[in-house]
Amino acid sequence: MEFVTALVFIFIACGCGIAWAIFNWIAVHKIEIHHKHEGLTEKLQGAEQEKIETLLEIGEHISDGAQAFLKEEYTDCSVFIAIMAVALIFVSPWSTLAFVLGAATSMLCGYLGMAIATAANFRTAFCAIRSLSDAFQMAYRGGCVMGFLLVSISLSILSLIIIIYNAVLVDNGDVENLISMFDYVAAYGLGGSTFALFGRVGGGIYTKAADVGADLVGKVEKNLPEDSPKNPATIADNVGDNVGDIAGMGADLFGSFAESTCAALVVSSTQLRAINEDGFLNISIGQLMYPLMVSAFGIGICILVSGYAVFIQKVTDIHKIESTLKQQLLLSTVALSPIIIGIAYWALPANYVMIQADGTTQLENLKPWHAFVCSLMGLWSGLLIGYFTDPVREVAKACGTGAATNIIYGLALGYLSTIVPIVSIAVTAFLSMKLLSFYGVALAALGMLSNLTIGLAIDAYGPISDNAGGIAEMSELGEDVRTSTDALDAAGNTTAAIGKGFAIGSAALVSLSLYGGYLTRIQTFQKSDGSFPYSEGAKIDDPIIFAMLMIGAMLPYAFSAFTMKSVGKAALQMVEEVRRQLHEHPGIYAGTEEPDFRACIAISTKASLKEMIPPGLLVIVTPTAVGLFFGPQAVAGLLPGALVSGVQMAISASNTGGAWDNAKKYIEAGFYKNDAGEVRKKGSDEHKAAVIGDTVGDPLKDTSGPSLNILIKLMAILSLVLAETFCKTGWLYSE
Amino acid sequence: MEFVTALVFIFIACGCGIAWAIFNWIAVHKIEIHHKHEGLTEKLQGAEQEKIETLLEIGEHISDGAQAFLKEEYTDCSVFIAIMAVALIFVSPWSTLAFVLGAATSMLCGYLGMAIATAANFRTAFCAIRSLSDAFQMAYRGGCVMGFLLVSISLSILSLIIIIYNAVLVDNGDVENLISMFDYVAAYGLGGSTFALFGRVGGGIYTKAADVGADLVGKVEKNLPEDSPKNPATIADNVGDNVGDIAGMGADLFGSFAESTCAALVVSSTQLRAINEDGFLNISIGQLMYPLMVSAFGIGICILVSGYAVFIQKVTDIHKIESTLKQQLLLSTVALSPIIIGIAYWALPANYVMIQADGTTQLENLKPWHAFVCSLMGLWSGLLIGYFTDPVREVAKACGTGAATNIIYGLALGYLSTIVPIVSIAVTAFLSMKLLSFYGVALAALGMLSNLTIGLAIDAYGPISDNAGGIAEMSELGEDVRTSTDALDAAGNTTAAIGKGFAIGSAALVSLSLYGGYLTRIQTFQKSDGSFPYSEGAKIDDPIIFAMLMIGAMLPYAFSAFTMKSVGKAALQMVEEVRRQLHEHPGIYAGTEEPDFRACIAISTKASLKEMIPPGLLVIVTPTAVGLFFGPQAVAGLLPGALVSGVQMAISASNTGGAWDNAKKYIEAGFYKNDAGEVRKKGSDEHKAAVIGDTVGDPLKDTSGPSLNILIKLMAILSLVLAETFCKTGWLYSE
Repeated sequence: MEFVTALVFIFIACGCGIAWAIFNWIAVHKIEIHHKHEGLTEKLQGAEQEKIETLLEIGEHISDGAQAFLKEEYTDCSVFIAIMAVALIFVSPWSTLAFVLGAATSMLCGYLGMAIATAANFRTAFCAIRSLSDAFQMAYRGGCVMGFLLVSISLSILSLIIIIYNAVLVDNGDVENLISMFDYVAAYGLGGSTFALFGRVGGGIYTKAADVGADLVGKVEKNLPEDSPKNPATIADNVGDNVGDIAGMGADLFGSFAESTCAALVVSSTQLRAINEDGFLNISIGQLMYPLMVSAFGIGICILVSGYAVFIQKVTDIHKIESTLKQQLLLSTVALSPIIIGIAYWALPANYVMIQADGTTQLENLKPWHAFVCSLMGLWSGLLIGYFTDPVREVAKACGTGAATNIIYGLALGYLSTIVPIVSIAVTAFLSMKLLSFYGVALAALGMLSNLTIGLAIDAYGPISDNAGGIAEMSELGEDVRTSTDALDAAGNTTAAIGKGFAIGSAALVSLSLYGGYLTRIQTFQKSDGSFPYSEGAKIDDPIIFAMLMIGAMLPYAFSAFTMKSVGKAALQMVEEVRRQLHEHPGIYAGTEEPDFRACIAISTKASLKEMIPPGLLVIVTPTAVGLFFGPQAVAGLLPGALVSGVQMAISASNTGGAWDNAKKYIEAGFYKNDAGEVRKKGSDEHKAAVIGDTVGDPLKDTSGPSLNILIKLMAILSLVLAETFCKTGWLYSE
Repeated sequence: MEFVTALVFIFIACGCGIAWAIFNWIAVHKIEIHHKHEGLTEKLQGAEQEKIETLLEIGEHISDGAQAFLKEEYTDCSVFIAIMAVALIFVSPWSTLAFVLGAATSMLCGYLGMAIATAANFRTAFCAIRSLSDAFQMAYRGGCVMGFLLVSISLSILSLIIIIYNAVLVDNGDVENLISMFDYVAAYGLGGSTFALFGRVGGGIYTKAADVGADLVGKVEKNLPEDSPKNPATIADNVGDNVGDIAGMGADLFGSFAESTCAALVVSSTQLRAINEDGFLNISIGQLMYPLMVSAFGIGICILVSGYAVFIQKVTDIHKIESTLKQQLLLSTVALSPIIIGIAYWALPANYVMIQADGTTQLENLKPWHAFVCSLMGLWSGLLIGYFTDPVREVAKACGTGAATNIIYGLALGYLSTIVPIVSIAVTAFLSMKLLSFYGVALAALGMLSNLTIGLAIDAYGPISDNAGGIAEMSELGEDVRTSTDALDAAGNTTAAIGKGFAIGSAALVSLSLYGGYLTRIQTFQKSDGSFPYSEGAKIDDPIIFAMLMIGAMLPYAFSAFTMKSVGKAALQMVEEVRRQLHEHPGIYAGTEEPDFRACIAISTKASLKEMIPPGLLVIVTPTAVGLFFGPQAVAGLLPGALVSGVQMAISASNTGGAWDNAKKYIEAGFYKNDAGEVRKKGSDEHKAAVIGDTVGDPLKDTSGPSLNILIKLMAILSLVLAETFCKTGWLYSE
């Protein structure tokens, strides 16, 4: 395929994606809620003006709180990014540029996502007054804005970087130039992942500190309902959903997307060689565009699929919410499958090989089908991972014998839930490595992310609905509105689990492909005496590799311990502030005085950014120190150890937490009956047991679990960038 | 060293060990408790005859229950052992013999341990009437009987097997004969590990089904205190301590001991070659006796050390209990260190090399110090692992904000507690592999187990004290007696954690050395066409190896889920039986009617043996099926995956559970004060939160955690035995 043709399609797709996002953005904002204006009561039968005013006010509070956090976070993060950017100048100024652009893109997308989410949340609550269908549409459209903006912007900026670098750095299609150019481009992924560390870990701590803190005082001590306006931490809790689940999740998946694209480009420019008709091996930049084309067509297909949900389907029944969202995923997967096959034949050379660094052939006789099988494996295993979740009932039932059995069953369920995703990932990794080595793995990762727009949309839908529920509760909008928003929120829980599955699965594959790049680097490292000290690869029975495999497998445990403690500490500060307010201002509990939301928001903001330092340092310092002191082989053991252990923990943490959350919602919805056949709702012992499980699950599913993705990916890409440095150091131990 | 000299020392040591055990056995039984006889009130001021009678009766119930379980377990297990023995005949009848002897030794030791524990438990309660010091001595002496019998019997039977096989199979010191002979001897380890599967998993499910079941109805529903005689499941709970923590733990550590000795013998006979004065390479059986000599001298030193605790030290203060037990470990470690150095110079050739299968030298210029460094690394890292446990206070404090924070902090603590043990194991593995390859790893494992007698003694001390506390409670022996037994029990919790640390650490090293043996086997496998298809070893970037590394890392999660669910199911059956009894016989709760203990014991027995089938099958079927279908390389990825992931889970599960248990005991002992400075004891909200944590921790620390040792070891030794079969099959995938 010609480079220009590819670019035309990519930019058309990105343009359409952005247009579709803007269209939805406008549609969301069109729902104007008249503020202290005439005509309101006409429009809204049954809802009084005062409540609507509260609704607007709360929406504004949440939006302000989220902005305030992002501002602080971006300030801190910018300093860190600047330091890393300066360090990267020693690698190459081009790397620095790509790195900064990657971080900036991620920040921009996070900001935009947060902006639309805080615009859609109170509107969703407002729409729920009219109808469930309207409310669903509002929330889903909000999600679509986030999904399409993120993917389209990142793909177009990445393409722009490639165009510019290609024009400036590549001399008439020279392959060596091409290889080093993509090395510089790869820093785009590093930039995205570095910001994701702040977004995921900082945001994760924020959201759960606020949530757990609010619950501990509110629900447990003061018997206030969830999202009570009397609880000073309620707004911070709702802000947390936006900064953690929207901005954090977005940064995480942007990182996966950027890294896997970069990994595919780096590996393919180094190893993929087309066979011309005369048997001559060569490669042009256009022939490497297959992965970007898959993403571009992914945007197109997802516009159609999401358009179907927005324009044609109507969600009139609360039982249809979840199935509609899951259908979106299924539809986009099915529709993309033939397209991916087509693109492979169109974009890839008809005959190609994978060569090794010394020029010999590693894999030969390759056809386009080798590539599309990898992409399809990724795409479908993503669906499989997403679909295999939530056997709610069993855990809810365990609440009948108390909190302890609820916890035991929840943990067991989380452990068990690793089987299907891990087997899917393992089979995908095996086949794609077998077919196309680490290029295949990168393609599988991108295949999984080819319907990322939909994945993000249904994922962002969750916190928007969650917020809407909170706002409805705080504005005291009435039982039927609350029923609608609760139902929307419950479905959001399931889709959040799906989103987490995608994030973990893609993180595993991305990290594996980056590891492949790392291994290639160290194997081809040549000492000044002409020898290749690390050419034999990573053998498990090499002492340093085995020892580091073990230590690598320990890192996710240490990291989870750090993040959970961070949540605990931050939550405790929140508890103290809430207690102080309720104690010093008895009017708050009586309902005559407004609590100081801002103080709680400030505490969550500060605490989360401070508490993310230990886990953040662990991720960055460990591989760097291990590489510098114990050499590249040590890191070659550390990375797979962290990968294989971290993926399990991430899956089980997010599914355990999700199951507890669902069990609580299941009981609250009145579906749960005890052995005597009585319905046991809020306030029952069973509900109390469920609340304990939910509180335990919070930091697991929203902080430590998802943060592990960052651990896995960031360690891998950092090591890749520092591979040559490790080969030259290894101060305490080297081969 | 001459073979005969070695044998003389080994048998002297074993003889002394057995004599010391018998001496303590007699000392335990000398405390006669007069049953319905005159003179009782004279002897026992303050304790009435009726209570003593109850004490005796309960002691008898527990002993009967434990016997009943062991009988059923041994019957089931024998069938399984018989099937495996028949299958092993195809390998060699000599293997079958060693296998059966290994299993039988493990059964015998389990039985003897259980017998002494059920004899010491009620006597400990009885002695607590007189003094804390007497009670401590009774419990510790019981532990010593268990520890010394197990190690001495297993070492002497193993030595006997070696003598006989050497006489029959080895033709005038022929090295080839020697190698195949030790291959047959290795089945001794497999036998021990196979029985350990029943002991650990079955026993683990038994003990926690009874414990959790008893707590759920008793404490939570009926507000009965722990070990209330009104609770029909109380006796089953106490029986569980004996079958799970005594017989199960014993079988586990016997397995480690036998397997690491066998691994050392197999590897050294194949690879270790002494350099004669004329430079000629050879090896005699006597030169391979170093590992057995270490164990033999370990017995001798531990007799002195435990004698110090029994005869000289007096535990008069409850604060001294824990330190005395920990001191035992420290003393034996310190005392053994110079001895191990001495043995190395005495038993090993002055100059030796490690050769590879093709006869070339892998490591040269080896001296005795290479070996003793490995042993010492194991010994001291065992101590380090044992010592790094229980920061109780922090978790107890978390109970102040409810059960959820207790669980969160407990989990985080468990995760964090992996760091020190894992780094110790990794450093030990690294150095010993570096020094002596997998022979070094086996030596390190044996070094860790060289003071196993003390390790087992302080470990068995725990359940004996726990039982004593239960018996004291049930016999209503008075507050001060209960205070003593509670203090003994609390220290037992810490030592139980130490014992678990030893078991896990040694399991990791044993499994690694067995994995080394497995790799050697497949690398030297020669196809009929003369090629060596698996000679390149286990590379992480080989697709099948990476995929299986991932699946291997998943197995501990699946296994834990199975075992936890098994406990849940069995506990539920127990709950129903207890509810039925309390409902149908109101006299039980009123205290006028005796509950039917036997029905509960029968339920725990049946349920545990039935529920152990799924996890048991997982351990046996997975490596076998993977090997048969996907070939030996697949297993070469599966084993290290399971190892590096399983060790982390095992450590964190046992420490999390231990921390919760300790937090509960801390509160019950009245040490916990809330922010306002009030002491919060039993019945407070904090205590309720602690009870929930403890109940969650039960299956983690006593079932799924310790059972993971078996997963790790049994998979490795099974694969080693089946290595050649895997090389010939690989039906679906082979290189």
